[in-house]
Amino acid sequence: MAEKINVGLIGYGTVGKGTAEVLINNKDIIFENTGINVCLKTVADLAIDTTNPDELLAQCEVITNNADDIINDPDIHIVVELIGGYTQAKDFIIKALNAKKHVVSANKALFAMQGTDIYQAAEMNGVTVCFEGAVAGGIPIVRVLKEDLAGNNIKEIFGIINGTANYILTNMEKEGKEFDEVLKVAQEKGYAEADPTFDIEGMDTAHKIAILASIGFNTLIPFEKIYVEGITSIKRMDIEFANKLDCKIKLLAIAKKHEDDIEVRVHPTMVPREELMAQVDGVFNAVEVIGDMVDKTMHYGRGAGGKPTGSAVVGDIIGLARDIVSGATQRTPVLGFKKDYTYYYPIKDIKDIKSAFYLRFSVVDEPGTLAIIATILAKYGISISEAIQPDERAPGESVNMVFMTHKTVGRKLSDALDEIDKSDVVRDKTVAIRVKELI
Amino acid sequence: MAEKINVGLIGYGTVGKGTAEVLINNKDIIFENTGINVCLKTVADLAIDTTNPDELLAQCEVITNNADDIINDPDIHIVVELIGGYTQAKDFIIKALNAKKHVVSANKALFAMQGTDIYQAAEMNGVTVCFEGAVAGGIPIVRVLKEDLAGNNIKEIFGIINGTANYILTNMEKEGKEFDEVLKVAQEKGYAEADPTFDIEGMDTAHKIAILASIGFNTLIPFEKIYVEGITSIKRMDIEFANKLDCKIKLLAIAKKHEDDIEVRVHPTMVPREELMAQVDGVFNAVEVIGDMVDKTMHYGRGAGGKPTGSAVVGDIIGLARDIVSGATQRTPVLGFKKDYTYYYPIKDIKDIKSAFYLRFSVVDEPGTLAIIATILAKYGISISEAIQPDERAPGESVNMVFMTHKTVGRKLSDALDEIDKSDVVRDKTVAIRVKELI
Repeated sequence: MAEKINVGLIGYGTVGKGTAEVLINNKDIIFENTGINVCLKTVADLAIDTTNPDELLAQCEVITNNADDIINDPDIHIVVELIGGYTQAKDFIIKALNAKKHVVSANKALFAMQGTDIYQAAEMNGVTVCFEGAVAGGIPIVRVLKEDLAGNNIKEIFGIINGTANYILTNMEKEGKEFDEVLKVAQEKGYAEADPTFDIEGMDTAHKIAILASIGFNTLIPFEKIYVEGITSIKRMDIEFANKLDCKIKLLAIAKKHEDDIEVRVHPTMVPREELMAQVDGVFNAVEVIGDMVDKTMHYGRGAGGKPTGSAVVGDIIGLARDIVSGATQRTPVLGFKKDYTYYYPIKDIKDIKSAFYLRFSVVDEPGTLAIIATILAKYGISISEAIQPDERAPGESVNMVFMTHKTVGRKLSDALDEIDKSDVVRDKTVAIRVKELI
Repeated sequence: MAEKINVGLIGYGTVGKGTAEVLINNKDIIFENTGINVCLKTVADLAIDTTNPDELLAQCEVITNNADDIINDPDIHIVVELIGGYTQAKDFIIKALNAKKHVVSANKALFAMQGTDIYQAAEMNGVTVCFEGAVAGGIPIVRVLKEDLAGNNIKEIFGIINGTANYILTNMEKEGKEFDEVLKVAQEKGYAEADPTFDIEGMDTAHKIAILASIGFNTLIPFEKIYVEGITSIKRMDIEFANKLDCKIKLLAIAKKHEDDIEVRVHPTMVPREELMAQVDGVFNAVEVIGDMVDKTMHYGRGAGGKPTGSAVVGDIIGLARDIVSGATQRTPVLGFKKDYTYYYPIKDIKDIKSAFYLRFSVVDEPGTLAIIATILAKYGISISEAIQPDERAPGESVNMVFMTHKTVGRKLSDALDEIDKSDVVRDKTVAIRVKELI
């Protein structure tokens, strides 16, 4: 008789429903692929009407408002946490691990901020916790780093890992609209939350890169050390200037490992159009990995949504089911490396990182303006690689002067801009956007 | 004390050296990721000078000209076959499996043509055979299909999976040169073999898509049923016309699953420039997968080369080492599905497959030519969606008329072209290239 693995699902929101849909609608496929009867036994959610379940829930043995009905059920092998947030989610996860159950979660914020407690609880209890769905939705990337690329010294991981921000930037470009206007449409279409702060301010992206960089670099990224800059100050005209410079503006997460330290940062970035990453548009995500042996790989797909994220969650469930049935215990470390070999790198200050910059100065249109700016830039050793002349201007209006700089250290650039922005010729705070080097 | 897993490597060519490099130079990283001492104990190759080994080989315990020194060594857990070819490679693999050793290989031709015998031998002996390196070099795709996307009903797999052919097509476009000229440069640079037949005629691509489609569709693709068309007849002017039509010509492998049958085919394809796949240039490869839950994912990277392919081979070795040490046996089926649930689909005849076509007619430039061609096309129900007028022509010269058709069945198209090519106005065999629909 086929082995049976029982799954309990806590949280029946978008991803919870998507996960239930994969498990129930593709039950036969999962059986054919594994020889295991992977059964969604119980679904718990405070908001479920247990007397009037939907079509999916009606196929589960137990529907409940109480997560403990899962955690305390001795027949359940794998607990799936999809409620999100910190305190309660963590409480459920730790209790499940202590009950010697394997855990699958898609909770990026929790794992980025308080992952260590969870990894320790899993290890102590001889069980595993998986979180492929926490990063980049349906795109296989967590396991790719832990398994497929495990023979590599990973040098760099970067990508577009927030679909909301990417949707907004793409549509600002395609429709020639300003940020606020596109955000409103994104909210109407369900691509942005009612409170979109985490997505547009880069926090969600930072959570995900913290997880990826921890796995890739065999470390534990201290989340608060990540430099995070969102996309709310990007103007339509910056996207148009980027276009003239053969670039697209993308919200990139970038993690790089150097000899003695690492960089982890999230900010709007000018990406040369010839890079594949520049072609990743709309709600799609992509992660590029550079390893010393494999060179570069890119992994692309839907970064959010119930069914794509459900596909990732179920990929984890299937992996655990195969582990259990084949007799493996803790086959792969939770972060892909053995705890005893955790590296603790200093995180490079954003001001010490070298980069080329896009600069847009909003200045008065009068003789001498360029000289003032150029003199200050020169004083800080910043040289210009390219300039764009504005096409039209009305007399007396402020005018935008756009430059691309050669590589310079962040500190010098910000000192120079502080000085320039104090000058009389400058009307608005200067816009500075880092440029991704070609790799 | 840390567990030790001994590896024996048969075949010390490009990929063999790359694999040795990953195992030896990244031994510490592999240990930190696994807690396992993965040791390249023995390397066997007929051509090795055992008395004068290179720097890598000098670090192995045994260097030999005799593969049996690996197969018969009771201390070796994993045998890596990297000699390529059929008879001898298969013999080594089967002997290793019968000796209850796990096997890793990158031998796409062997697995595409005679994989079944190997899968059976593995199963009978309670061991596993892995072949991530057989498809798309360093790109994780075999395990992605077997593990990460195992909760999906896979609908389609397509991609650019031959670096040589893609290098030639890319450089024909970038340098405006003809096929033969670019092939010669590719050979000089080592991107094409002295005998490039397998790459440019599409056979290598067909081997790889046979493996991917078998895994993705839970079937065993009968290799001889795959429609294969290479790139040798692509002319510079076709690439230029493609450019005008906002397309690139790529050698695509395409596998699609329908309700009652499947398509597996390899041919030059017009790919709309807006598709990410069109941006995959040079020696790079990419595979796109469409699953019912995850929607589309794309996986990109180096499709060949010693170190990238070595990265994939070592990914397999690490997976097996983790299996062995964690106590798992045959954790995942060799093709990602249980043998008892193998589907046997009819393979659709290429003539029954619907597609839009690019057509280039080489015709005499005189009144009535267009009418003759248009009449025959109409007779077969083929309608035109777009036409390109040639820019220049000398009187009396033949002229190229280029059309894009709406979707039509391959049989009607080939019947129409047979008739058109017999007509007096046609100077050369008409060129027909299938167009990839947007997805």
